[in-house]
Parts: sequence; C-alpha cells; structure tokens
Amino acid sequence: MTHDTTSLLLALALFLVLAKLLGDVFERLGQPAVLGEILAGVLLGNLPLVGVQGLAFITTDAHLAMLAELGVLVLLFQVGLESDVARMARVGGSAFAVATVGVIVPMVLGTLIAAALLPEASTYAHVFIGAVLTATSVGITARVLSDLGKVDSTEGRIILGAAVIDDVLGLIVLAVVRGLIEGARVGGEGLGAAAIVWIVAKSVLFLGGAILLGGPLSRRLFKVAAWLQIRGLLLALSLAVCFAFAALAGAVGLAAIVGAFAAGLILDEVTYRPLSGREPVGLEEQVRPIGTFLVPIFFVHTGARVDLATFADPRTLLLALALTAAAIVGKQVCGLAVLQRGLDRLSIGIGMIPRGEVGLIFAAVGQTLGVIDARTNAAVVLMVFLTTLLTPPVLAWSLKRRASSSSVSSP
Amino acid sequence: MTHDTTSLLLALALFLVLAKLLGDVFERLGQPAVLGEILAGVLLGNLPLVGVQGLAFITTDAHLAMLAELGVLVLLFQVGLESDVARMARVGGSAFAVATVGVIVPMVLGTLIAAALLPEASTYAHVFIGAVLTATSVGITARVLSDLGKVDSTEGRIILGAAVIDDVLGLIVLAVVRGLIEGARVGGEGLGAAAIVWIVAKSVLFLGGAILLGGPLSRRLFKVAAWLQIRGLLLALSLAVCFAFAALAGAVGLAAIVGAFAAGLILDEVTYRPLSGREPVGLEEQVRPIGTFLVPIFFVHTGARVDLATFADPRTLLLALALTAAAIVGKQVCGLAVLQRGLDRLSIGIGMIPRGEVGLIFAAVGQTLGVIDARTNAAVVLMVFLTTLLTPPVLAWSLKRRASSSSVSSP
Repeated sequence: MTHDTTSLLLALALFLVLAKLLGDVFERLGQPAVLGEILAGVLLGNLPLVGVQGLAFITTDAHLAMLAELGVLVLLFQVGLESDVARMARVGGSAFAVATVGVIVPMVLGTLIAAALLPEASTYAHVFIGAVLTATSVGITARVLSDLGKVDSTEGRIILGAAVIDDVLGLIVLAVVRGLIEGARVGGEGLGAAAIVWIVAKSVLFLGGAILLGGPLSRRLFKVAAWLQIRGLLLALSLAVCFAFAALAGAVGLAAIVGAFAAGLILDEVTYRPLSGREPVGLEEQVRPIGTFLVPIFFVHTGARVDLATFADPRTLLLALALTAAAIVGKQVCGLAVLQRGLDRLSIGIGMIPRGEVGLIFAAVGQTLGVIDARTNAAVVLMVFLTTLLTPPVLAWSLKRRASSSSVSSP
Repeated sequence: MTHDTTSLLLALALFLVLAKLLGDVFERLGQPAVLGEILAGVLLGNLPLVGVQGLAFITTDAHLAMLAELGVLVLLFQVGLESDVARMARVGGSAFAVATVGVIVPMVLGTLIAAALLPEASTYAHVFIGAVLTATSVGITARVLSDLGKVDSTEGRIILGAAVIDDVLGLIVLAVVRGLIEGARVGGEGLGAAAIVWIVAKSVLFLGGAILLGGPLSRRLFKVAAWLQIRGLLLALSLAVCFAFAALAGAVGLAAIVGAFAAGLILDEVTYRPLSGREPVGLEEQVRPIGTFLVPIFFVHTGARVDLATFADPRTLLLALALTAAAIVGKQVCGLAVLQRGLDRLSIGIGMIPRGEVGLIFAAVGQTLGVIDARTNAAVVLMVFLTTLLTPPVLAWSLKRRASSSSVSSP
C-alpha cells in the first residue's frame, strides 16, 4: 500500500525531527539515542489509538518500508566500514562459538515454550517459533555499540561477529525448517541431506567469497576510480557495491543486511586516498549524512509497527513474555562460550539479546507457511520490541560497570 | 507497481555507476554531466527493445519513481541553498517579465499548433496542449547551470527565478484550464472569477509567506538547534524543513519542488555556525552526499521513461517536433523581456527551454480529464526529452561563447 507524496514527505519530516529530539532526550538520560528513535516510532505509529488517524498509513506504507530497508542497509554498511576484518578474524573462534550456542539454546527453549503454551499447534509450528528466536538483530546491537563508542572493543567485535554469524545460521535454520514443512505438506519426505548441504554451502561461499575475492577486486576497482578523478564517483561506487552485495545476499537466500555489512568490511580495507583534493573527506564521513537521513527512518518505522493494542489480550501477553524470557536466557549462555579469558562475558551475552528484522522476517514467512497465526505473530512482534527496548539500557549499564571497575579490565 | 528488493537494489547500483561513468564521458566532451545521466536512463530503460527484459520494471516501479522524486527535491533544495534571496530579489523584475512572456508565447504557439495538427480534438484540448508548454523544468536548467558554475551569475539568477515563477504561473494556468474543462463538462459556466483569484492568491501567499515568515522563524529554530548540540540535528532539521515545505507546496496545489527550492532559499540565510566543532562541515557539504546518491536517480529515471519505440509513428513524431519547435521559439522571446542591459539575452532564452516534470504532470492531468490521448502524451514526452536533451549542450555553448568574447562582458 502506498500513500500520496504529500503525506509521505510530512511523515519523513516528522520522523527526522522527532527521532532526533527523543534520541537526544535519551542521550541526556545516559541511554543510547536509538531507544528514543524507536519510541518516536511507537508514539507516531499508535496515534490511531488516541483517535488521530492522519498518520495511520505509516505502518503499512510500502515506500516508508523501502526507505527503512535502505536505512538498515546503510547502517550495516557503516558498521562494516568501522569494522576491521583482520581484527575481527582474531575473535572469529569466539564469535563462532558464541553464535552457535546462541542459536541452539534459544531455539530449544522457544520450541519447548511454544509446545507448552500452544498445545493445539503442530510440532512444525513449535519448531518454527523456536527458529524465530535464533537471530540477533545486528542493527540494534551495532547502533548501541556505536552510540557507546564500543564497536572496536574486543567484546564489541565478538558481539558483532557472532550477530552476523547467527544471522547466517538463523537463515540456514529457516531454510531447513521451511524445507521440512513444505516437504511434509506435499506428503513426501522432508528436506534431503543434499539440499541442506547446499543451503549451508552457499551461505558460507557468499561471505567467504565476498571477503576473500571482493577485497582484492574492489581494491583494484577503486584504484581505477581514484585515477578517473570524477567528483562523487568514489561515494557512488561505494554505495553501488553496498547495494549490489545486498542484492547478491538476497539472491542466494541470505538477509540483504549481511551483504551490506560484507560490502562495508571490504571497502574498509580499500585505501581511500583522493588524488587531487577534489574529495575533501573520507568515505565514512561521506556516508554519514546519508545515514543521518535514512537510518532513523528504519528505527522509527520499527517502533511504529508495534501495535500497543495487542497488549490487551492476556494470552498474547503471556506468550510474548515467555518468548522474551527464552530469548534473553537463551543468549546468556553465549557468554560462557567465549574462548578468550578476561573478557566481559555478561556484556557479550546481553549484546546478543535484541531480535529485530530477521525475527520479523521469520514471522512473515511463518504466516505464509500457515504455521504462525495472527496471535503468535503479535507475540513475536512484542518479543522483538521488548528485547530491543531492554538491551540498550542494560548493555550500556553493563559496559559502563565494567569500564568503571578498572581492577578487572580486559586486555 | 513495485518490484522485489533484490531487483531494486541492483537497479540502484546500476543507476549510480552508469550515471557517473556516462556523466564523466560527457564532461570530458565539454558537455554537462546531467546529459550522460539521462542517456544512461535512456539506455537502461530501452533494453527491452533489444530483447533484454530484466530491467523492464524500472520505468514503472513505484519505489524508483519515489526515490527519483526525493532526488529532484534534494536537487532543488541544493539549488536553493546555493542561491541568495537578496541577490535574487535584485533580478526579480527581469525574472518576472521573462517568466510572464515565457508562459504566454509558448501557450499561444502550442494552442495554434494543436489546432492545426489535431483538428478532430476540442478547443479545450488545444488550449490544454498549449498549457503543457508553459513551465520550464527548473531541475534540468539548475543542474546545467550548476555543472557550469553559473548558478550565481546574473543570467543564472534570472533564469532560475523565472523558472520558479513560470512553474507557479504554469500551475495557475493548469488550475484555471482544469476548472474551465470541468465546468464545461457539468454543463454549467466555466470557473468563477473568485476561484481563479483564490488559485492565484494561494500560490503568491505560499512563496511570499515562505520567504518573509520562514526566514526569521527558521533562523530562531536553528539558533535553538545549534544550542542543543545534538550530532546530526542541523542536517536532520534542514531535511525536515525541505520535506515539510515540499509537502506544503503540494497541499496548496503547487509542485513539491517549488517548496524544496523555497526551503533552500530560506536556510541559505540561516547562519549555520556549529558551536563546538561537532559538525565538521557546513550544510551544503552535508547535503552533497545525499544529492550524490539521490539526484542521479531522478535523471536516470527521467531518461528511462523515454520509450524509443514511439519514434516509429510518423504522426507522433511530427506533433512532437512541432511542439518542440513551439517550446523553443516561444521561450526565445523571453530574452527580449529582460529589463537590465548588457546581459546575455540569448543564454537566458536558451536556459528557459527545457520542459520536464511539470510538463509530464500536466500531460498526466490531461489524460485524466480526457483531453490528452495516448498519441499526444507520447508527443509531449518526446518534446520534454528533446528540449531537455538540446538545452545542456546549447546553453553550455552559449554561456562559453559569451565568456570568451570579453568585449561584451556583463557587469
């Protein structure tokens, strides 16, 4: 559904101003600004509850959803640009261990809770609800770490690395569970071992290929681009690489944000050295204004889709709270999987809590497959909202607590 | 019609790279880069003619059309930021004279040509086709002037001022003609004098009010914003003002780009002085990366909607060429209306030639009213394309010719 241009432009103006103002209020309270942006969305999206209908379209408008998606791509691209592949590889073992534990434990807990609270649903539905809990929202976590200046700490790199890996693992789980359900529906056997291997292989190939081949290739491409001396070419080319990688990730069945993050990782390696001074600032500085415009749209939009009216049904609330508890507890075991010593395991576990866009994508797929009904969907959205709302203040507290106790400082 | 995200992202990546590369080719040939961006669109949009269907969606995709519209808003906002209200007011008389002549002459010529070539159509249809020729595309002209560094020359300011004024005059003509046609259809008399006065008044009120009230108001707003010291707030607030003014212009029946231009004019007056150095660059520099991303989408999209297959019908071609001739000749009289002496009247007349988005909006309204058929619409699109294609090289030549003949330099 799309709305007319006038309403869309007014909504964008409101999004930008309210997100910045509430973001600032939260920053002054010592909280990450992203929480204020989400709250701005909750306020704007729930105006119909108090009888104001003028902005009711923002939760369903296709154009806003698209701009929000571009916003989260730019955010992950920025996070990738800020990240360092070599330093990320050094925490690769820990990140992989954290991600694996963080996929298995919440999935088992979620399946058990679904079986207990929704006995009338099929086993496939139970497993599917478990799968919804697997993937950490790297967007929320990245933004909180960025707001607190912790992206490049060891803990920050483990959390971001694990969040990317569990996105990939989660999407593999989704592909496998979907294959099982569709296989069962046509009456045949489930998904063959070969198909499972193929889903796993193409995911690994994409990220490995992007980092191993993309790095050297784009280094050459950008050398040519710098030599061409076209004003704005390097920014345009960088955005093109970001969008192309996001599209490629989508094409092989991964989330588009994984591609945008990979593009940022690769271009971080590129020596961005303008020859003639026609490019006054670096790539990160050039991408920042685009992020200032588009990233808040994502968070306001995420907040706007939380329908506060769903809180009215106590059974929805119970399911949501149980799933939220599983989502939180399930990821706390992650911290124990960290291989290095002396690290802030509590912060790592907390950093893995938020579920976001991937969880919502899972819920949408589940509705298409007929294993997730409207009530379960509302509970999933609430779980996403609660984990998202909880993480920023708790993670900020946890990271600051650690920083202030200098006697146990990490290496 | 919307397409899936993967295709959209790939299209954006292609748009950005091809626009920059072809833009550079044209710059190396001494032509404005915008022509290369439009050509990139013509190439991508007509791939179906050579059997490539993968990008066929770009001419009809609603998301791309919306991003293109945001692009032209950002462009006009940038042009407004580069403009100076006080210096523009000094050429106000000339700009108004140029605009008035440039609306009347092409409208009369267009009506006569339509009457001669389309005798079967109604008089309303003839007048409507005349009205399509009135409004100069400030987007194309602004970009050419910007590419050549002439936005702030006296001629540049007259052209831009007149282009904005004839947009307003054109939209008033459209409102009046639409009123006449709808009045005739219901069998009553045409549009009342009161209604005509109201249409005129609200247009004048909008622009006058925006500049007289908006300036002082936004100066205060931005003083508060600078004092709040929120990172990115000034850019977010500026974009919000741009979008809100564009929406307001749309709400009073003007083109949204008129509002974006007015917003740029006002914010140009704002003393943009960051207090603490947290904002490393000025507003124009912060908006530029957003323009680098979005503006080419507008020009590639404009080019993509030119269907080369319409050239096949000789009658369409004849009508298109006749309308193009009227569009060109009609605006050449403009130069004679310039009040100041010693100016480059030829360049001013040429600068007024391109018809763009407003002409296309007119054609769409005419189709809804039933006075413009598919063939006439194709001819209008061709006219828009030809005037757009012609202006950049001819204007560049005209401005350079003047610059090189130092004996007749302007004051």
